Amino acid sequence: MVHLNFFHLFGLYCLIVSVKGWFYGRPDPGLMTRGEVWPLPMNVTTFNNFTHVINPATFQFTTQLNCDILQQAFIRYKKLTFPGYAQFKEQVLKQKSLKATLTQLSVQVTKGCDSGYPQMGMDESYTIQLNPTSTSAVLKANEVWGALRGLESFSQMVFKDSNNNWFVNTQTISDKPRFPHRGLLIDSSRHFLSVSILKRNLDLMAQNKMNVFHWHLTDSEAFPYASKRFPDLSAKGAYTPRHVYTQSQIQDIIAYARLRGIRVVPEFDTPGHTGAWGPGMPGLLSLCYDENGQNTILSNLIDPTKDANWDFLTQFFDEALNLFPDNYMHFGGDEVEYYMLWCWYRNSGIMNWMQQHGMGNDTTKLLNYFFQKLVPLVKAARSNTTMIFWQEVLDLGVAPPSSIAHVWKGDTYDEVMSEMYQVTAAGHYAILSSCWYLNYIKYGADWGYVDNSEIKQRGMYYECDPTAFGGSQAQNDLVLGGEAVLWSEFVDGTNLIPRLWHVFS
Amino acid sequence: MVHLNFFHLFGLYCLIVSVKGWFYGRPDPGLMTRGEVWPLPMNVTTFNNFTHVINPATFQFTTQLNCDILQQAFIRYKKLTFPGYAQFKEQVLKQKSLKATLTQLSVQVTKGCDSGYPQMGMDESYTIQLNPTSTSAVLKANEVWGALRGLESFSQMVFKDSNNNWFVNTQTISDKPRFPHRGLLIDSSRHFLSVSILKRNLDLMAQNKMNVFHWHLTDSEAFPYASKRFPDLSAKGAYTPRHVYTQSQIQDIIAYARLRGIRVVPEFDTPGHTGAWGPGMPGLLSLCYDENGQNTILSNLIDPTKDANWDFLTQFFDEALNLFPDNYMHFGGDEVEYYMLWCWYRNSGIMNWMQQHGMGNDTTKLLNYFFQKLVPLVKAARSNTTMIFWQEVLDLGVAPPSSIAHVWKGDTYDEVMSEMYQVTAAGHYAILSSCWYLNYIKYGADWGYVDNSEIKQRGMYYECDPTAFGGSQAQNDLVLGGEAVLWSEFVDGTNLIPRLWHVFS
Repeated sequence: MVHLNFFHLFGLYCLIVSVKGWFYGRPDPGLMTRGEVWPLPMNVTTFNNFTHVINPATFQFTTQLNCDILQQAFIRYKKLTFPGYAQFKEQVLKQKSLKATLTQLSVQVTKGCDSGYPQMGMDESYTIQLNPTSTSAVLKANEVWGALRGLESFSQMVFKDSNNNWFVNTQTISDKPRFPHRGLLIDSSRHFLSVSILKRNLDLMAQNKMNVFHWHLTDSEAFPYASKRFPDLSAKGAYTPRHVYTQSQIQDIIAYARLRGIRVVPEFDTPGHTGAWGPGMPGLLSLCYDENGQNTILSNLIDPTKDANWDFLTQFFDEALNLFPDNYMHFGGDEVEYYMLWCWYRNSGIMNWMQQHGMGNDTTKLLNYFFQKLVPLVKAARSNTTMIFWQEVLDLGVAPPSSIAHVWKGDTYDEVMSEMYQVTAAGHYAILSSCWYLNYIKYGADWGYVDNSEIKQRGMYYECDPTAFGGSQAQNDLVLGGEAVLWSEFVDGTNLIPRLWHVFS
Repeated sequence: MVHLNFFHLFGLYCLIVSVKGWFYGRPDPGLMTRGEVWPLPMNVTTFNNFTHVINPATFQFTTQLNCDILQQAFIRYKKLTFPGYAQFKEQVLKQKSLKATLTQLSVQVTKGCDSGYPQMGMDESYTIQLNPTSTSAVLKANEVWGALRGLESFSQMVFKDSNNNWFVNTQTISDKPRFPHRGLLIDSSRHFLSVSILKRNLDLMAQNKMNVFHWHLTDSEAFPYASKRFPDLSAKGAYTPRHVYTQSQIQDIIAYARLRGIRVVPEFDTPGHTGAWGPGMPGLLSLCYDENGQNTILSNLIDPTKDANWDFLTQFFDEALNLFPDNYMHFGGDEVEYYMLWCWYRNSGIMNWMQQHGMGNDTTKLLNYFFQKLVPLVKAARSNTTMIFWQEVLDLGVAPPSSIAHVWKGDTYDEVMSEMYQVTAAGHYAILSSCWYLNYIKYGADWGYVDNSEIKQRGMYYECDPTAFGGSQAQNDLVLGGEAVLWSEFVDGTNLIPRLWHVFS
């Protein structure tokens, strides 16, 4: 977890096979690791290569705690630590030849269990001690979230030989993440993604020690979020009544993520990218006009001049903020400039209202009005909410105080870093995504250098560093981390997992 | 089957969702077809929209024939015709409200069953008759292979409403393929692909009425084909001893393909792309030299000057030709020019041999010697074998008589068509692949216009027509069809299916 890695070991490994090919010798796809941990831990000390033998049939994960998170994790990691053992148990037991020298992993959590949810700032640090002389491995963490990361690392430290003997190297690992926010954006508006696919994706995030599921829930294409207070939003805005997430399904996903130490940060993109809100909430969107004054443009922008819309937004976010337990919520705010021209500037009713309210013709002032007016209703619903916005909201100077900047633009690496410099110089916390637009696929370069014209020279996925903008230590301290994004224009349940993770199955 | 379609309905449909997005209105991913057949049949006549009701619980597929191919197909198509019925049987029976008006599909095959294998020239034509007045639908075909295509069409004609009532339109369909060769190349050398993935792919080929699985079995990266006579080839040439196809596994795949009317045409690429043959057959490959005369280049080219190598090739192909029942076999022959320079021209032993045999310094003559010498050993092993080669073999004029040209090169659509013109003008049968390199993926254009520099202006996948080269009718008659190719440098079991078919699962 030293580096901000988004890459599954096999995905990376497969690229090496593919790019280098036979000219550089043929790697062995059947090769198993010898217990290397991914992402690379902060500190690893090896005891002169002594290797413990483990018997999967009798090995125990133990804890003194009565803790659902650990009990559930033990069930998962018994499988994940000994892949294939369950299926081939008989054969394994028959073939086993070596006597076990390690019999348990003892998990100790200083602060005990956590009945709540993972939050920004959770302590994910942990240590694993495996001594040649002890039959017990020890995993220590301050918080249960760190214990989960340690269990993942331990499962990766265990390996087996062709005789089905299982081993683990004697090592001391001391690890903690470089960044507190290691996220992945999944877009369930452009294509609907089933609950089972989202859960599978959470498993893989945990395997890679990623800790934030940024759920881009709604957009112009579809509104799959089922509000109880406003059922028409999904009834009329989802692709079909079947392509929705009920609140119990959302709670199920949040609970599934919690058990893996993953935060679920929902995004309700406003005031733009709201086209799919319209069918279920007449009057919410502004009428939009082309250069000839014709109302030909499908609206994608909320009309903030109507009180009724603020009554709606108050009720809507009150419900959403009480459904999602994460202290952070993403409110979008990207790509409104064109719609401001079409749907506000050319909308006489809105222009009249703006003039009456001293905004003249400056639609940016109306945009500012929208975001500032969001704050009290958000705080009223949940006072401790931190608001995240896409970078334009910060760039335009219309963001509420202490908003977090989500940097996603930039045609070059320099532009990206310059934006990171500016938002942190302005004192904002920042999350970087520009470097990791995983939906930009390209033959022969899926994970390598990206020369797609849309992100020309943005740099290597691996080499992009969110703090490489040459700022002060104070600025670096404002960098919360990064988020890979997989926009779903060309992604659905059939290709999301391979495109993101490329796991051999 | 009028057009040469490689595209799964959902794959195509999904592109429409993706590309057009909400601006053009939001298609309904939950939408089912109303019984449209894909690919579009040659002739469809609809009886003034009368629609039969079907009860999946009692509907019968019937035939007078005792025919394993049909019995197995009935089992498959009972599931494929009523997707989801098995899982939701109770619910369906409860909800069913309409009385069935169609009770069976009667399958009649003029020429009876076929105990052999599908071959080039098999009759895939069929008719389906569904009259408003009859409770029995009739599928007629001359050969069982046509019956399989008809069963696929019938399964696509059936649809259901939200109350789980199943329907089928009353239509007469008369259909036959435009081309006899509708293939898909799968490359199991760059990445190993499991038997289960290959079978799943055969299911999807059948769903799209494709009839040739071109199995690129060996190449420079790996040799997964397990020869019984030369076990070292895969023991030393496969990625691992586990990443091989045993002969019983190959027979299993061939049998699975036969039941779906799909030919399995193996390719053993020679004399180039043979790097992975080397480890298991010392002396087979020429030593290769860089411009400084150093033996630094890993060999990828067979040495045809040694009698021992011809003894090997005779034994090897005798075994292979008796394992694979298809009358056609692909012998590769692509991309040897550089290796001819490195491994033959700069190899003094080979140059001496060439001079002794009156070839002077012309390595093309040695290449011609290789291919001509292949013929008698192939004919001896199986006299009715038709040999397919990649286009260079024809272009260089070194192909055996009546070889088939597999066209794969061309930077522009014009170049591709010009090559098709030339090979057919020379009297060769031709298969086109240049237009359908499905491994060239690109963000936002997976199925659309391809501007990847490697196939610049090659044209639209959909619009490329193998006979658009302006040749005579005699030339057009030599066009056997086309093959989509999915080279596997960046493809393995995790992404092959979604990349090729994009099936919702």
